[in-house]
Amino acid sequence: MKAKFTYVGIRVKDLQKSIDFYTKLLGMKLLAEPSSIEETKGKCAALQSKGSDLILELNYYSKDSPYNTRYVIGEGLDHLAFKVDDMDRALKEVKKAGYAVIEEIKTKESRWAYIQDPNGIWIELI
Amino acid sequence: MKAKFTYVGIRVKDLQKSIDFYTKLLGMKLLAEPSSIEETKGKCAALQSKGSDLILELNYYSKDSPYNTRYVIGEGLDHLAFKVDDMDRALKEVKKAGYAVIEEIKTKESRWAYIQDPNGIWIELI
Repeated sequence: MKAKFTYVGIRVKDLQKSIDFYTKLLGMKLLAEPSSIEETKGKCAALQSKGSDLILELNYYSKDSPYNTRYVIGEGLDHLAFKVDDMDRALKEVKKAGYAVIEEIKTKESRWAYIQDPNGIWIELI
Repeated sequence: MKAKFTYVGIRVKDLQKSIDFYTKLLGMKLLAEPSSIEETKGKCAALQSKGSDLILELNYYSKDSPYNTRYVIGEGLDHLAFKVDDMDRALKEVKKAGYAVIEEIKTKESRWAYIQDPNGIWIELI
């Protein structure tokens, strides 16, 4: 099939809280004001990092949406990865913003850390 | 924070089955042979669509990995989206490959459909 991987959509419990996390902490840009989708009774917002093609879509479903099932973090999404320039500074910013660093791994060759977004999704900083 | 969204990593139950799905059905390219990651007792593979920056990482955890928790599809990952050239042909290929089309939505302006990958992750064809 001729198909092109275009974006990843995560589900969020509170659109504004997630927009804040991805823009204020991780520096992404909101591509446009959140739009309503009649078919799903939801709203979605698209975000992008500077210099990257990759779009992150935040999907919010209103209470009367058939997609508004109980929010449980599952195993499907392992993590979203963000490359940072300065890991020490990044981890300081994470802590200052009130988020926990849940795991930090250092090897001889590399170093990475995990934080969690407002929904509990694991975010890898590399 | 200066951070760049780099890739999305999903967890898979069977690495080869998922590689087959994303390469044979959705036409992605395996960037390199799957590599082992000592720290997580896992293996991962990276895939990319032609003409796209977006990397999809498949994460497999062996039985003795601390990350090998029970695989439950949750709400964190809403869907992965793939743009297709020809929707009718794409849906025919999906059915021929033995996968179900679980939802098809048509509006005046657009049309999209959902299928599921071997782990149950929703894949949107647009």
